[in-house]
Amino acid sequence: MNENRPIGVFDSGVGGLTVAKEIKRLLPNESIIYFGDTEHLPYGDKSKETITRYSVKITKFLVKSKCKAIVVACNTATSNSIEEIRKAAGKVPVIDVISPVAKKVAFELHQKIGLIATKATVNSHAYKKSIKKLNKHLKVVELATPLLVPIIEEGFRNTAVSKNAIETYLSYKKFEDIETIILGCTHYPLIEKEIDAVFKGRVKVVNSPLIVVNELIHRLEKDNLLSKAEKPVYQFYLSDYTDNFITLAKSFFGKSIQLEQKQL
Amino acid sequence: MNENRPIGVFDSGVGGLTVAKEIKRLLPNESIIYFGDTEHLPYGDKSKETITRYSVKITKFLVKSKCKAIVVACNTATSNSIEEIRKAAGKVPVIDVISPVAKKVAFELHQKIGLIATKATVNSHAYKKSIKKLNKHLKVVELATPLLVPIIEEGFRNTAVSKNAIETYLSYKKFEDIETIILGCTHYPLIEKEIDAVFKGRVKVVNSPLIVVNELIHRLEKDNLLSKAEKPVYQFYLSDYTDNFITLAKSFFGKSIQLEQKQL
Repeated sequence: MNENRPIGVFDSGVGGLTVAKEIKRLLPNESIIYFGDTEHLPYGDKSKETITRYSVKITKFLVKSKCKAIVVACNTATSNSIEEIRKAAGKVPVIDVISPVAKKVAFELHQKIGLIATKATVNSHAYKKSIKKLNKHLKVVELATPLLVPIIEEGFRNTAVSKNAIETYLSYKKFEDIETIILGCTHYPLIEKEIDAVFKGRVKVVNSPLIVVNELIHRLEKDNLLSKAEKPVYQFYLSDYTDNFITLAKSFFGKSIQLEQKQL
Repeated sequence: MNENRPIGVFDSGVGGLTVAKEIKRLLPNESIIYFGDTEHLPYGDKSKETITRYSVKITKFLVKSKCKAIVVACNTATSNSIEEIRKAAGKVPVIDVISPVAKKVAFELHQKIGLIATKATVNSHAYKKSIKKLNKHLKVVELATPLLVPIIEEGFRNTAVSKNAIETYLSYKKFEDIETIILGCTHYPLIEKEIDAVFKGRVKVVNSPLIVVNELIHRLEKDNLLSKAEKPVYQFYLSDYTDNFITLAKSFFGKSIQLEQKQL
């Protein structure tokens, strides 16, 4: 096996960059192929069939690009289409963003966990099911927060707009007595501090990039797939060019990234 | 000619419903086929090529559905793809949302006009070009306001979130001395009162549905295409089901509307 093959990462847009950035930080020898399906963004409001169709196409593209592992850096795709994605990936290992987080929180000390995510993720109840399968005594309260992705995509982080939207969502009655909140969307780490501020430290905020990348490391070690390349390559494919993606990708990966448009 | 044929109307999502509603009000004998491309919503952040590809497909579908006229109830599609849409429509008359508004404002008493719209509409400069072609002495200042569509789609009208986002956008320095503002997106009439409140009556707010439907009436009269049907039919095709669309369509057209999913 050629251990220098890249790791494939995909999302509907910029959210997955929070995971890709963590891969770069913790696995500095690994090359990455990132696919951002910006033409079809956001996934969170779409139907299961549509999300699956796009996710499977991207997975096949990453397999064809000889990725040694695929990280589904999108909660909506994970929650709606993970079985179809694994099938399309064949023998290539697939790391999703939900099961490592479920494993992480299921056995810590808490009775009631909150979850914020897109509509499609919440409607799938993927987190609730994964957590309760591991520990049926926990209570999981889910809330769809669909305006947060556009707020992040449009540069309204750290403004009265984000503050009010976050406060409105988090004042959800059933969140009153939660001990932990899961950020169930790869965009949300970008507003983690604002979420933390609302809870004033009372609630533990769990965000997935670090947990997911630890799972990836574990899997690559197990399969003897870690790279020793000194000059990893970062390639970005976008189904549609968007300024926001290019700006954020460059701020995370430097100005000399390889960027290409590719229709799904 | 069969004058009872339907009028075709399309948009990326719910925005065009503000135009369809006005057709229903002013032309109560006309049947409507509405296509909402909710699978690919929002159009405002996409590239010209992508917007054109979707718009042409929808136009061909409406022509095949025997529409007697087509209303492009989307500023982004009008500003980026109107020539290709007219070509795809062949002999079927096409009414767009920009040129009637440009005609309306170009000769009224004002020196400086503001425009708010999606990124794709602003980048096309379609309003500016149309208005200045008619009256080169007018000054047109354009501003992209991309968060407003998601705010409307996610039910944050009349909240602190919409108030702050609208105030942030409208405090744009170059808007200080405008006399008129054009709502260059068919979603924005849904927040017209909130926009009006920021300007405190100082600025005239122009929204297009009424102007566009007047143009449609004029064209149907001229071509002798007005319907006398007593029971018009309202058909809605969605490329992806979304709760928000169904709720708003029913609130405008009643609960017994015909709704069908149709992949583009």
